[in-house]
Amino acid sequence: MIPTPGDAAALRVAVEPTRDPHLVAAVEGAGGSVVPLEEARVLVWIGGPDGVPALPDHVEWVALSTAGIERFVAAGVLDDRRTWTNASGFYARGVAEHALALLLAGTRQVVRSAHTRWAKDAVDPAVRTLRGASVAIIGAGGIGRELVPLLTACGARTLAVTRSGRPVEGAALTVPAERTEEVLAQADHVVLAAPDTPETRHLINDHTLALLRPHSWIVNVARGPLIDQAALYRALTTGLIEGSALDVTDPEPPAPDDPLFALDNVVITPHVANPAGRLTEEMAGPLAENLRRFVRGEDLLSVVEFGRGY
Amino acid sequence: MIPTPGDAAALRVAVEPTRDPHLVAAVEGAGGSVVPLEEARVLVWIGGPDGVPALPDHVEWVALSTAGIERFVAAGVLDDRRTWTNASGFYARGVAEHALALLLAGTRQVVRSAHTRWAKDAVDPAVRTLRGASVAIIGAGGIGRELVPLLTACGARTLAVTRSGRPVEGAALTVPAERTEEVLAQADHVVLAAPDTPETRHLINDHTLALLRPHSWIVNVARGPLIDQAALYRALTTGLIEGSALDVTDPEPPAPDDPLFALDNVVITPHVANPAGRLTEEMAGPLAENLRRFVRGEDLLSVVEFGRGY
Repeated sequence: MIPTPGDAAALRVAVEPTRDPHLVAAVEGAGGSVVPLEEARVLVWIGGPDGVPALPDHVEWVALSTAGIERFVAAGVLDDRRTWTNASGFYARGVAEHALALLLAGTRQVVRSAHTRWAKDAVDPAVRTLRGASVAIIGAGGIGRELVPLLTACGARTLAVTRSGRPVEGAALTVPAERTEEVLAQADHVVLAAPDTPETRHLINDHTLALLRPHSWIVNVARGPLIDQAALYRALTTGLIEGSALDVTDPEPPAPDDPLFALDNVVITPHVANPAGRLTEEMAGPLAENLRRFVRGEDLLSVVEFGRGY
Repeated sequence: MIPTPGDAAALRVAVEPTRDPHLVAAVEGAGGSVVPLEEARVLVWIGGPDGVPALPDHVEWVALSTAGIERFVAAGVLDDRRTWTNASGFYARGVAEHALALLLAGTRQVVRSAHTRWAKDAVDPAVRTLRGASVAIIGAGGIGRELVPLLTACGARTLAVTRSGRPVEGAALTVPAERTEEVLAQADHVVLAAPDTPETRHLINDHTLALLRPHSWIVNVARGPLIDQAALYRALTTGLIEGSALDVTDPEPPAPDDPLFALDNVVITPHVANPAGRLTEEMAGPLAENLRRFVRGEDLLSVVEFGRGY
């Protein structure tokens, strides 16, 4: 049988720089075969921008394994001669789970408890419930959409901010990005899940922090630069907001003597919402789905909007 | 109008030892009036066993505000001349939220992160997801039943243990108490939500810990004595299980030098799953419901099974 472009048999995929077994299984599960780059129509690249090889013209699609691709953009790796996909949506469910873990660790005072030894009198009055709370999700893309049902199960009301303002399923309200402040003014807590772009940089700053409440928690599972960290430190130490739970910081890693580490109303996890150790395991399913779409000539998931940088 | 026993106007309720405004509002919302104990058919008692007054025979029902009533039993306060209710079910939703917070703080390594400063290499490989995990709920009464939908939203499968084994809605499996070990052997994680009785004391011991897995977390939002804490310490320090998140300890409070405090795979919150500061606020709604049931002569919620001690 001579393969035609629409055949899975024509699905020749390079998995580089290492032939990760989870991703090899995904390729084979989609009916494709893993081949050297010289023969490939698709490159699955599990790594950063350094070392991306020169791409032959027959590579029609590069599937990157990272959620954020700022570093690829900065390194000038992307081109407009083929399709590029990132993996942001692929890890969305896990990142949403981490966002919930951080929000609950904050509001239920789990971390303040960890910093003390049975300081019941200090901890008890500060424990809050998500039932009836309004939680703003800034950037309700893949992660945000996965977070909505988790918050809903906990009895919270979700206020979603998306670029377009197109309604997010399950959210009590969705507004476009230019109405972010309106949502912050109504929110008990805020979860940042937006990409790092010139528009979102320092979205949380002295001005927007002042819109929040003394009991508010801010969770960041997106990118550190979304928060003006000096402004956050001021807000956390003056009681403007109650706390912040961060999986990302600016810079990253933070300096070992970053003053945020010393605050018991700050929760920091070391950028593990999408743990590297489980990355290819998590990516395998969505990659297989994208490979099947590729074979059928359908739109791929998580295509990079060239020029926007995400 | 002369009140008859079925009339809300006959609902004369003492709220003692202090006339808490949330509970006074609940009484009035149910159509009743707050009166001194000498005139009361119902006593709402917000406190411990010390100071419970001698009860006139016209007090038909005592509504206690605590979830566990071991101390009332030990003090000999309960009698069989009237109905006693505890408040365990009333706080179930909040306690379930706390159980989820503890489980996620453990499995997502939030607390290990808090004990270190951006120790990414140590934290990343240990981060787990609840998606696809099996979580045993030991004692799927009110708290357990509220926890099931939260775990389900996170993609976990729930294995419920109840006294009777009557199926718990949403659980993949419900078994009676005598089959607890069967469930422990299948579980990734365990949440303890059972009352403290002779049957449940040291339910988690060297033998049952050995049924669990090296990645297992044990969460206790029930009572400290359900766990043989010396056995738990051994399991935590030998890698038999991965971690434990405890809102209750044995004894309570723990000694300031309790060795559990020094472990970074232990999460301890100071018995705040049902925070005292929000107790009457949380109790108000269910109390109003019970008062309406009392007026209509219907079965009350959360009646103490006299002799069983819960």
